[in-house]
Amino acid sequence: MVPEKIADVSLENILQIFTLPEKPDSTLAKMEKQISEDRNLFFSEHIISQKKTLNDMEQDFSNSAIPEQPEFISKHAQHLLDALVAHSAYTSSPSFVGHMTSALPYFLMSLSKIMIALNQNLVKIETSKAFTPLERQVLGMLHRLIYSKNETFYSKRMHNSKYSLGAFCSGGTIANITALWVARNNALKAQGNFTGIEKEGLFRAIQYYGYSGLAVLVSERAHYSLKKAADILGIGQEGLVMIKTDSDHRIDCIDLQNKITTLRTKKVKPFAIIGIAGTTETGNIDPLTELAAICRKENCHFHVDAAWGGATLMSNNHRHLLDGIELADSVTIDAHKQLYIPIGVGMVLFKKPDITNSIEYHAQYVLRKGSKDLGTRTLEGSRSGIVMLVYASMHIIGRLGYELLIDQSIEKAEHFASLINQQSDFELLSQPELCLLTYRYIPHRIQKILSMASEKEIIEINALINELTKFIQKRQRDIGKSFVSRTKLNPVKWKRIEIVAFRVVLANPLTTLDILKDILIEQRKIALQDAKLNARIRSLF
Amino acid sequence: MVPEKIADVSLENILQIFTLPEKPDSTLAKMEKQISEDRNLFFSEHIISQKKTLNDMEQDFSNSAIPEQPEFISKHAQHLLDALVAHSAYTSSPSFVGHMTSALPYFLMSLSKIMIALNQNLVKIETSKAFTPLERQVLGMLHRLIYSKNETFYSKRMHNSKYSLGAFCSGGTIANITALWVARNNALKAQGNFTGIEKEGLFRAIQYYGYSGLAVLVSERAHYSLKKAADILGIGQEGLVMIKTDSDHRIDCIDLQNKITTLRTKKVKPFAIIGIAGTTETGNIDPLTELAAICRKENCHFHVDAAWGGATLMSNNHRHLLDGIELADSVTIDAHKQLYIPIGVGMVLFKKPDITNSIEYHAQYVLRKGSKDLGTRTLEGSRSGIVMLVYASMHIIGRLGYELLIDQSIEKAEHFASLINQQSDFELLSQPELCLLTYRYIPHRIQKILSMASEKEIIEINALINELTKFIQKRQRDIGKSFVSRTKLNPVKWKRIEIVAFRVVLANPLTTLDILKDILIEQRKIALQDAKLNARIRSLF
Repeated sequence: MVPEKIADVSLENILQIFTLPEKPDSTLAKMEKQISEDRNLFFSEHIISQKKTLNDMEQDFSNSAIPEQPEFISKHAQHLLDALVAHSAYTSSPSFVGHMTSALPYFLMSLSKIMIALNQNLVKIETSKAFTPLERQVLGMLHRLIYSKNETFYSKRMHNSKYSLGAFCSGGTIANITALWVARNNALKAQGNFTGIEKEGLFRAIQYYGYSGLAVLVSERAHYSLKKAADILGIGQEGLVMIKTDSDHRIDCIDLQNKITTLRTKKVKPFAIIGIAGTTETGNIDPLTELAAICRKENCHFHVDAAWGGATLMSNNHRHLLDGIELADSVTIDAHKQLYIPIGVGMVLFKKPDITNSIEYHAQYVLRKGSKDLGTRTLEGSRSGIVMLVYASMHIIGRLGYELLIDQSIEKAEHFASLINQQSDFELLSQPELCLLTYRYIPHRIQKILSMASEKEIIEINALINELTKFIQKRQRDIGKSFVSRTKLNPVKWKRIEIVAFRVVLANPLTTLDILKDILIEQRKIALQDAKLNARIRSLF
Repeated sequence: MVPEKIADVSLENILQIFTLPEKPDSTLAKMEKQISEDRNLFFSEHIISQKKTLNDMEQDFSNSAIPEQPEFISKHAQHLLDALVAHSAYTSSPSFVGHMTSALPYFLMSLSKIMIALNQNLVKIETSKAFTPLERQVLGMLHRLIYSKNETFYSKRMHNSKYSLGAFCSGGTIANITALWVARNNALKAQGNFTGIEKEGLFRAIQYYGYSGLAVLVSERAHYSLKKAADILGIGQEGLVMIKTDSDHRIDCIDLQNKITTLRTKKVKPFAIIGIAGTTETGNIDPLTELAAICRKENCHFHVDAAWGGATLMSNNHRHLLDGIELADSVTIDAHKQLYIPIGVGMVLFKKPDITNSIEYHAQYVLRKGSKDLGTRTLEGSRSGIVMLVYASMHIIGRLGYELLIDQSIEKAEHFASLINQQSDFELLSQPELCLLTYRYIPHRIQKILSMASEKEIIEINALINELTKFIQKRQRDIGKSFVSRTKLNPVKWKRIEIVAFRVVLANPLTTLDILKDILIEQRKIALQDAKLNARIRSLF
C-alpha cells in the first residue's frame, strides 16, 4: 500500500517542493495532458454535476482543521480529480448556455501556466518590469477601441506616468466601483477652503457643497453590483436611483429627466448617470448618445457599464449598436466575458487620462511619485500578470477573429429567437440585441386564454406559469444535458407583473443551433412531467 | 519564409482555437516544458532585466491599435518569450529579497493550468458546484487557524447560507476594504426611523447619529491601501487617524487613547481600530491583546491587518507573536504572501459569522435569497477557482510543512540581523520579528562622528547617508545579481528624522545565508563607487 501522508517531514523535503523537479509528478502530468486533450473526460454525464447532492459535497469538504502531515502530490491530485474536478460545473460545454461562460481559446491554458510560473506583481515595475508597459499598451488598445483618438494622443499618454488610460481589475464590479469613485471624487473636489472629499470625507463634502445627498441614476435593469457600489461609496442604495425601462428594456429618458428634476428640488446632487451596454438579464443597450446629451446638460459624469457588451466594439458590423459609448467619461469592459479570457479580468477605461488624479496613491517603499507603477491609480494593490492573456488573444485572434465571433453569436441569437417565435407554445420575452435572450414555455391553449383574460386572471395564470418555468428550468438542470438559467422580468407586455423567464447567453462559439433546438424539445417534454401543476393548468381551460 | 499572419481568416479557423487540439502547439509546449524544468533559461543574467531600458520596452509595447489579422500561435509565443518574458522581473529568484515574492511550490503550475481549463466562477454555485463547498471549507480552515472555535461551531456554520466565515478576494487591499465596510455599516446600522447607512448613505447616517465625522485608528506604519479604504468608504483620509509608534515600530497605546479622547470631544465617531500583524516595511506586530481591550472599552470594531504576518499562525513555535489576534472582529490574510500561492488571493475572516449580514446582496438571475452562492457577501462579483490552489497547498505542504517554512524564514532573518550587527559599517534599523528587516550602510568613521554630532549635524550627515543608500540600492538593482528594496523610516533612535533604509524580505525558502552575505559585500563595494558622494562624505571627517 502506498503511504498517503509523509511521515517524517523535514525542511529538506519541503524545500524540494519549491525546486523544479527533474521529473514532473505523474498524476499531475496525466491530469494536465488529459485536460488539454479531451475535457469531457473530467466531467460526469451532467453539465452541472449531479452525481452527488450539494449536501454530499459539503460532507467531502467539511473538515475545518488544516491537516498536520503533508500529503503526497500524486495522492492529492487524484483526490482533487475525484472529489472536486469531477463535481465542478462544465462551464465550457457548448450546451451550457445559462451564464456568460464559454469555451476558451486553448492556448490560454499554456500561457496561464507560464504566467503563474513568472508570478509577476503588476502593482509596481520592480516586480513586473516589461509587464507594466504591456499593461499600459493593452489599456491603450481598449481605450482606442472605444474612443478612437489619434496616434499622437496615444504616443503621448500611453506610457506617461502622469496619466492612466484605465485600470485592470478583477472584474466588472471593481471596474464600476472605480469609475464611480473617480466620478464622486471629481464631483466633490477641493475648492476654496475645502480640501476635497478624498481628504475630508463625504459628510463634510456634502456640507461644504450644500447638498442634502448624492445620486447615481441608472435603469432598473442595472447589474446588482451597482447597489454594492452605492453602499460602499457612502451614497447609499437609495442614492442609486432606478429609472423605468421601455418595452425593449432600455432606459426611459423622460423618466430620467423627471427624476433628475425631482432630485434637484430636494438638493440631492446627481453626479453620475450610467448607461448599460448589454444588460445582464436581456442584453439590451441603453440609448447612449441621448444619455450623453443629458449628462452634458446636467453636468453629470457619464459612465457606461459595457461589462458584457463592450466586446461588440470588435465587430465593425455591430459596433454601431454601441454608438455614443465614445462620449462616456468612463467605460467598464470585462475581458472574461466576450473577449474570452479566464475569469478574473475586468477593465475600466477613462476618456480623459488625467481624471484619475483624484484617486492617486503613493507609498514610500513603492509607488513613489512620478513612477510608472500601475498601482498608483488602481483600487486593488497586488495584481497578477493576466494581462498577458488579453494581449496574446488580441494578437492570435485579431480584430477580425473577434469580429467573426461576435457576429456569429448575434446571428445565432437571432436564429434562436425566430425559432422560438415559430413555436406555438413558447413566448419570446426579449428580442436579442446582443447574444442574450429570454423566453418561456406557455401551452398554446393558455396563450389563447391569456389573450382574452381579465387583469386579475392574467396575474393568476402567470403565477402558475411562473411555477412551471421554474420547474422546467430546475428539472432540465438536473437532467444535465444542457443548462439554461432563469431570471425575473417585469415586461411591459404583461403590464409589468413579475414574469419568470428562461435566460440564454450564446457566448460559447461552439454552441450549435441543433443544441438549441434540443433544448426547446426537452423543455416541452419536461413541461408535462409535473402532474399536479399540469392538473392546475388544465383546470384553467 | 513562414507567414506571420493568417491571411484568410474564416470562422472555421477561429473556432479551431476554441477546440482542444490533437497536437499542442510546439513552441508553446516547449515554453511550458522549459519553464517547468529550469526557470533560469527564461531570464537574463539580471534579476530585474536590464537588457533593455524601460523606455525601449515601452517602444516594444507602443502600438495602440488592435491588430486586424490573427497571428500564428507559434509565432506569437516566440514574441512573448523574446519581448515580454525575457524582460520580466525574476521574482522567484532566491536573491530577489526586496519584496514579498518568492519561489512557489512547483505543483501549483500544473494546478493553475487545470484551474484555467475548468474556468469556474465562484460567484454562484451554478458555475462552480463543488468549488463552493471547497471555498467555504478553506475559509473555515483559516477561521479555525485564527479563532480556534470547536468542531460544533464549524459543522453548524461552515456550509450554512445564513453565515459566512469570511471572503476570498483579489488581495489584502480588497480584504481590508471589506472589513472596514462591514465595520462602518455595523457602526451606523438601522435604528428607530433610520434604515441604515447601506440604504440611506453616509451623510444621513452621520446626521442621524449626531456625529461630526468618522474615524479609523491605525499606527503610522499602516499599509498605504488603508488610505484608499478611508477615501472610498467616504470617511476621508483625515478620518484615518495615524498613531505614533514606539522604537519597535509598534503602535503607541497611550497616543491611541489620547487620540480617541480628542476625537470624542470633537464628536467624531472612532468606529474601528486596526492592529497590524506584520508591517509592510519592517514586519513588526502591534500589541494585539492591548488593542483588543481598548476596542472593547471604546466599542470599536477590531480589525487586524495580518496580510503579511497571518501565515505565522501556521507555526506553533511562533504563533504566540500574534497573541490577541483571536480577539479581532476581522482579520486580513494574504494567501499570495507566506502561504506561497500565486498573486491574486487575499482573504478576510470574521469572528462572528453573521457580521456580514450588513453587506448582503442578491440578484434575480443568481444569488437568490437562501442560496449558498458565495457572491452574496463578497465585494467582488465573478471570481476564479483559485481557492483550489490554497486547498492543495494546505494538504501537500501541511501545517507541519508551513511551520518549517515560517520557522526557517524567521531564523534566517535573525541570522541576517546578527550578521549586520557584526559589521562595523552597517546599521540595523529594525530588529526582525518576522522575516523582514531594514538596515543601511554607514562608513564606520561616520558612525563615530554621528555618535558625537549635534542635532543639526545629525540631520546633515543623515541626508548625505540617505543619498548613499539610494545610490547603493539602485546600483545593486542595476547590476542585477540580487534585489533589495528601499523605504523611508523615521526611527526613534534618529529622533524621527527621515532615514532611507534597505528593506529585505526573506520569504523565499530558497534564499541562503551565503546569498545574504554576498549582498552585504556587494553593497560595501558599491558604496565606494560614487566619487563625488564619497568626497562629500570624506569632507565630514
